[in-house]
This record gives sequence, structure tokens and C-alpha cells, in this order.
Amino acid sequence: MKFTHFNDEGRAHMVNVSDKQDTQRVAVAVGFIEMQAETLRMILEERAQKGDVLAVAQVAGIMAAKETSFLIPMCHNIPLTGVDIKFQIYNEKCTIKVESTVTTTNKTGVEMEALAAVSAACLTIYDMCKAVDRGMVIKQIHLKEKAGGKSGEFKREEILPWEK
Amino acid sequence: MKFTHFNDEGRAHMVNVSDKQDTQRVAVAVGFIEMQAETLRMILEERAQKGDVLAVAQVAGIMAAKETSFLIPMCHNIPLTGVDIKFQIYNEKCTIKVESTVTTTNKTGVEMEALAAVSAACLTIYDMCKAVDRGMVIKQIHLKEKAGGKSGEFKREEILPWEK
Amino acid sequence: MKFTHFNDEGRAHMVNVSDKQDTQRVAVAVGFIEMQAETLRMILEERAQKGDVLAVAQVAGIMAAKETSFLIPMCHNIPLTGVDIKFQIYNEKCTIKVESTVTTTNKTGVEMEALAAVSAACLTIYDMCKAVDRGMVIKQIHLKEKAGGKSGEFKREEILPWEK
Amino acid sequence: MKFTHFNDEGRAHMVNVSDKQDTQRVAVAVGFIEMQAETLRMILEERAQKGDVLAVAQVAGIMAAKETSFLIPMCHNIPLTGVDIKFQIYNEKCTIKVESTVTTTNKTGVEMEALAAVSAACLTIYDMCKAVDRGMVIKQIHLKEKAGGKSGEFKREEILPWEK
Amino acid sequence: MKFTHFNDEGRAHMVNVSDKQDTQRVAVAVGFIEMQAETLRMILEERAQKGDVLAVAQVAGIMAAKETSFLIPMCHNIPLTGVDIKFQIYNEKCTIKVESTVTTTNKTGVEMEALAAVSAACLTIYDMCKAVDRGMVIKQIHLKEKAGGKSGEFKREEILPWEK
Amino acid sequence: MKFTHFNDEGRAHMVNVSDKQDTQRVAVAVGFIEMQAETLRMILEERAQKGDVLAVAQVAGIMAAKETSFLIPMCHNIPLTGVDIKFQIYNEKCTIKVESTVTTTNKTGVEMEALAAVSAACLTIYDMCKAVDRGMVIKQIHLKEKAGGKSGEFKREEILPWEK
Repeated sequence: MKFTHFNDEGRAHMVNVSDKQDTQRVAVAVGFIEMQAETLRMILEERAQKGDVLAVAQVAGIMAAKETSFLIPMCHNIPLTGVDIKFQIYNEKCTIKVESTVTTTNKTGVEMEALAAVSAACLTIYDMCKAVDRGMVIKQIHLKEKAGGKSGEFKREEILPWEK
Repeated sequence: MKFTHFNDEGRAHMVNVSDKQDTQRVAVAVGFIEMQAETLRMILEERAQKGDVLAVAQVAGIMAAKETSFLIPMCHNIPLTGVDIKFQIYNEKCTIKVESTVTTTNKTGVEMEALAAVSAACLTIYDMCKAVDRGMVIKQIHLKEKAGGKSGEFKREEILPWEK
Repeated sequence: MKFTHFNDEGRAHMVNVSDKQDTQRVAVAVGFIEMQAETLRMILEERAQKGDVLAVAQVAGIMAAKETSFLIPMCHNIPLTGVDIKFQIYNEKCTIKVESTVTTTNKTGVEMEALAAVSAACLTIYDMCKAVDRGMVIKQIHLKEKAGGKSGEFKREEILPWEK
Repeated sequence: MKFTHFNDEGRAHMVNVSDKQDTQRVAVAVGFIEMQAETLRMILEERAQKGDVLAVAQVAGIMAAKETSFLIPMCHNIPLTGVDIKFQIYNEKCTIKVESTVTTTNKTGVEMEALAAVSAACLTIYDMCKAVDRGMVIKQIHLKEKAGGKSGEFKREEILPWEK
Repeated sequence: MKFTHFNDEGRAHMVNVSDKQDTQRVAVAVGFIEMQAETLRMILEERAQKGDVLAVAQVAGIMAAKETSFLIPMCHNIPLTGVDIKFQIYNEKCTIKVESTVTTTNKTGVEMEALAAVSAACLTIYDMCKAVDRGMVIKQIHLKEKAGGKSGEFKREEILPWEK
Repeated sequence: MKFTHFNDEGRAHMVNVSDKQDTQRVAVAVGFIEMQAETLRMILEERAQKGDVLAVAQVAGIMAAKETSFLIPMCHNIPLTGVDIKFQIYNEKCTIKVESTVTTTNKTGVEMEALAAVSAACLTIYDMCKAVDRGMVIKQIHLKEKAGGKSGEFKREEILPWEK
């Protein structure tokens, strides 16, 4: 077992995937942001109006998926065929869950795109709300599922921050 | 108390900071990535050679700080005067801590730049190691300290993932 | 009267503004997108739900303002201090007006940033609705107002597409 | 008939095109910029020298086509196989027409790339000439033609600004 | 024999490669940076520690390969399947050689990506060392090898700066 | 004498320039590209028509100056106040010289911006002409002059490739 991101001189490289197959691939990632009860209440209220923190976070997440290869040095630049972002509110935990689903039909997996989308969406929620709550914490960003490609399927139980 | 990122029509905007002072500002953010013991051992061993996962992660973090305003929709684009990233290894917890310090002398704080730097560094560690460990989890990304500007100082005890 | 964007060899350059003053500057631009009555009805209906075409267009406009100097070759890269985008619906004309206001305290005006924001917002409306209406037309993008800096104030009556 | 850019929660997403065919696609867009007679005369004169406003505008348009997916939030990032931009001068109308042709062999159409190229070229003409004419107006940006893909062909008579 | 990068109006365009084959392509480029003996000694010493000028240069080179189409106006934006960068030290010549290898399976060659990677790596070495040596010179950046595609193979003897 | 781009842990960082003065700074860089006689003749002939290789190269150089901090990892992102690029033809040497002048009034020098502009312009010339001449070589990219800031003035005789 070895890191694939290093060449034979021991330096980082972008792994050569020329011989991999174009195939349907999907990755699902999740992450959480915990805040004060009042902050969450304000987000949910704004949402009833035009001002919607989550709408901005979602656009940020989708755009970040497309910019992943400019953020993560050894990540391949590939055309994505779809990006979707969903939110779930855990009222009693003062927490919002962000879940992204990214697809491609290219030669490498899109785990990094899915994780980057979740990260950017969480950071945007932080940015939009930081004037009222600088203490928000982003938690448990992880890959939940992945399919397609030679390394096969990966699936895990979602990790909830309050259970760990 | 209200969100500043919304205009009087209730739509998101980039807050007008024209009347704010140019002043020395700093933000410190931290985040963690937990992995299998074997993965951490491999990272530390590679580090003794030329191949250094953390060196790549650190470059990614510094570049992400400069790209923050392209990732976070309502974030101001400002010249940064410094970005530094440090790592701490918690061997027994199979965890690496990433800490970023970002400075500017411009009109707005750099909390988002510090948080984005930490996020990108954690994501890059994930990317470099995912061939051996897809189950890594990014944890407790938060602002630790902030100084300068009208909203004044913010400082909190670092949140360690295993204490929460 | 001559173009300032050319050097003494007759080639384009980025004008040297080193000796200009840092001062408060603002630019306001407008543009319009005309569509079928049904398309506008769908946009307004979606807006009552979570799916809001205009929310996405507005984020696109704000981000485009920050990316203007990467789009417009001779445009200076400067920190913006604020970006705001508003929409007005002209029901009987099946038209949406986009108006952007951009501010800076730097050495050059922000006309291009305001115009780029309007353009990107109009293009995004087109993108979101093109599956139902490929015939939408973007109209009368122009500078409405500008203040600050040596070239002084500029102000004009808004040009409505149906009056011209 | 419904917007495709929204998921079943009613939030915007990047439409999943994984099952679409790789096929030859083309889009042609046009737009216009109207100016004072003197401004147009200066552009045409400069063109005889090395300083050529339209050469810069054209480069801007081609680069914008490649950056479209970073400007338009729900737009797919795909490899383009060709971008061409042409200009037509309407002397008596003090107007320049910009026409772009974009091609791909990927899974989605390139209407947005063609429209973005036209927009960026028009904005660049504005930028290069604004020192002498701040009142220029960008007009009638629209899709003229599109072929390839499931939604089939689209073709319309070009809309001239002075006929509407 | 004519330039392919111009359309029939004599203006630059992005060449239409729609009819080219997806095929395995590779390009290898090299470049050199010459410095004072003391600067090279410092680089090699730092390398024994964590601070590694070449590690940063290499990340810069790999990222630049992915950004090539945003730097070089008429260059196609294509997914790369691999990027590798190697260094060779010529102690007695006070020179570091940078060699990049870039691969794709798309419709156009990756010469520009390989050359851009070498350029960015050399520039980064300059940046990291300029505080001690502003007189460094970047030399003989050239294509060494190219294979795949209709234009066939290209191969040349490496040009060493001190032999020319 | 030590590298400033490393922190006290020996890792690369973006140097903190918070305490430096805003002051007028300028940097001038040069570089050369050598080609076959026939290639140079074609470039000069095209220039008499609308198709002008150097016009595209110049736009590329100016845009690269603005993108420098995204290419060079430890380089500060600062507003530039001016970028100019000039060409000189050495007919008998089959060589084009590119010279860039970059200015800022910010806290750090713009050597990297000047060098990046020259590099991108040379690469663009290569790209535009590679269909007829893959053997072009980019030579002697170096800083020629720098003024402003604490490190003071730097000035050197231009290095001509055929004299070294």
C-alpha cells in the first residue's frame, strides 16, 4: 500500500490516469455546521423572505465543485456532469447538514469535488452569519459514498457530530 | 441583531465597507483531519523523504487564502499581507491539526481567508492520502482568534475534536 | 481626445494610475432581459418557493464584479468595497431590469465592474431559463451613474428598451 | 414545461447530463454596441495602426468562452473545441456587431459560452473606449443559432437594434 | 504553410478541433534557471530540512499546467490525465533544470501545458529566492518531445544553456 | 542571509508585509523568443494585416500580470496600477524581445508580475506559431530593473541571448 500521488523521485505529481476508463462515477459527501440557536432561527426566518443564506451557500458549493482542481494541487481537471447540494436542519442540535452529490463520466473519481462543494457551502454559511455568530464550527466533513471506477464502491454510515 | 449580508430588499449583497478604516487585522483559524494510524504513519514517513504531503497541503492552503473571494460569494477581494500555515501531529489521536494565520491592512477582516486556508489544506491532505484511506474525516474547523477592526477582538479556546 | 488604453507604440496597455488618488468611487449600471410572458411568470412563481432564479443571478453578478479584471484585459484589479444588485420586474413588458451598484476607495473607477455584474446576472437568468425559452434577449446594458475620481460625475436618464 | 435547473427540493442545481451523448454541438450568438460617431471613427482609425480595440475585444471574448462555467453558476465546465469571434461595422448606425461561434463535442450545448463571449467582447470595447465615450450602450445580445444535442436545432433571424 | 490560429478575416481564433480524434498525447518540456552558487547551495540545504523550494515550485508547475488555457488566449481547455515535474541540479553550472511531462487523451496536444508548467516552476524558484539573488536568469525553455495526434512525433536533443 | 519565504518551522509561507510602506514601485523584466527566420517573417507579415501575433501575446502578458498571485504560490495579491508590454524585433537573430513594465503603489515589489507577464507573452507567441515552428526557444527571462521599497533599486545591463 502506497500513496499514488508521488513519483519515483518521491515528489508529488498528478497521477497519470490516461489508461483509465471513461465511466459513470458519483461521489456523495456531507458536512455540518453548528451554530447558536438564535443564528439558526435567523437563517430559517430569512429563508421565508427573499434573503436566503442557504441559496447563496448552495451556489457557492456548486461553483466550488467546478473549481476544485484549482484548489487541490494534485486533483485532475475534469468536466463534471452534475452537482447537487441539499440541506437538512437539525433544530435541536443547532446544526445544518450539507450534502453534495457530484457526477462525472470521465476517468477519475469526484470525491474531491464533492468534499470541496460541502466545504465551500459550510464556509459560505459561516460568512453570511458571522456578524451575529463568530463561534460557528464546521464539523465532520467526510465522504459518504462513491461509485464507479476501478477502486469500486465505498459507502459508510453518515457520521453525526453529536454521536462522535 | 441582524445579518449584514442582506440589502433592504432582503437580497444578499457584498456589504459596503467604504467607510471602514484601513487597519492592521489578523485572523487565526484551526481545523483537524482524523485518519487511520497507518495513514498518519505513512505521511510522517514520507515527510522524511522528498515526498511531503504536508508541504503540498500548505501550498494549497496559502493559495486558497488568496482565492477566498472567488469561493465565498459575499466575501470582499482584498490584498493579504501575510499567510502562514502550521501543522501539529496528535499521534495518539491519529489526527493532524492545521492552523492558519492571515493578516491584512485593508478594510475588512480576514476570518474567511483563514478558514478557507484551513479547509483547503485539510482537503489536500485528504486528496493525497485517499488512495489508502477514504474514511478520513475533517473536523472542528473554527475561528480561534481575530483582532483589528471595529468589531474588535475575538478569542476562544481551541476546540479539540476528541473533547467534544 | 484620444484612447488612453494605448501606449506610445500604439499597443494596448493597462493605463498607469499610480498618481491617481485613493478616493470614494461608485458606479451604477443597468441592463434588461426580455422574455416570453410564460417565462417571466415561471420565474416569479419559483420565487415564491425556494427555487429562485433571481437569487442565483444575483450571486453570479456579485462574483462577476470581483472577477472583472480577469475578463476585461486592460481593467485594473482593485479591491471593491461593496457590490449590490437589484431587480425590477416590468410585467407588461415581459422584462426584468438588473441594476448593480459597485463601490471602491481605490485609484480607478468601477464602471466595468458594474457593467460586468449586470451582464453576468442577465446571462445567468438566460441560463436558468433557457430550457423553456431560448429566445430571451439581453438589452440596453449601460452605465447610469458614476461618481468620484478626476473624470468627475456622469449621470444619464435610464434607457428603457421599449422607448428606444 | 418546467425549469431544469432546480432539484426536487426546489433549489438550483447543475443538471445531471451523465446520460447525454457526446456529440458535435455548435452555438452562434450576437450582440451589438452602439456609440458616438466619433468613437467609432477612432476605433476604425486605430485599427489601421497597431492599436486595435477589436483585437483586444476578440481575445477577451475567446477567453471568456473558456471561463463561462466560472461566471454562470449552473453552467457545466466542458472542453470547447473551437471559439471564433467576428465583427461587423454598421457605420451609419454607429454600431459594432459582435458574433461568436462556439463548438464542442461534449454532452451539453454551448449557448452560454457563445453568449458570454459576445458579452465580454462588448464590455471590452466599452472599456477601451470609455475615456472618450461613457455613453455607449450594449444591445440585443441573443442566441442566433444552435445545433446538436437532444433539444435539436434553434435558428432565428438576427435582431438588429434599430429595427426593434 | 500558414498560422492556424487566424480565421479567414485574419483575426485570431481558437482553432476548431471538433473533428480531431481523442487519442493518447504526451508533451515533455524543459527549462533552466541559473543563479549564484550561494543561492543554489541554500536551496539544496533547505531541502534537507522541511523548507523545500523545489517542492513549492513543483506544486506551482502542476497547477499552472491546469490553468494554461486561462493564460494562453487561443489554447484549448482540456482535461489533463497526468502532470509530472522533475528537477536536475547542475552544481558546477549553478543551474537547476525543470522538466515537465504532461499527458491527455483529448483532441489537442499539451505542448503549451508542458511549457507553462516549466515556466511557472522556474518563476516560483525565482520568487522563493529573490530576497537573496535578484539576478537569477530563466533560460532555454523549449519543447523536448511530443507524441500523439495528427501532427505526429517531435523530438529534439535537449538544449543546455551553456552549450549555446 | 536567508530565504524570507520560510517560517520558523522551516515551511514556506507568504511573508508578512503588514509593516511595509505603501509606496511607488516599478519592475521591468525582459525575455526573448528565438525562432526560424521564416516564422519571424510570417509574424511580421501578419502584423501588417489584422492578424497580429504580438497583439494577442501582449494581451496575454497583461492578463498574466494580474493573475501572478494565483500562479506563484507565495506571491502577494496586490492591486497593480499599470502594466505595459513592448516588443523589439532582432531580425538578424530571428528573435523577438518582450519587455514588461509593471507598477504598483502597494506594499510589495512587482518583480514577479513583470516576469510572469514576459513569460506569458513568450508562451503565447509560441502557441500562435507552433503549427509552423515547434522548435522555438524562450531565452534569458530576467529582471532588468526594480525601484521603490526598502530593498531599494536594482538595475542591470540587459542580457542578450547571443552574447551569453
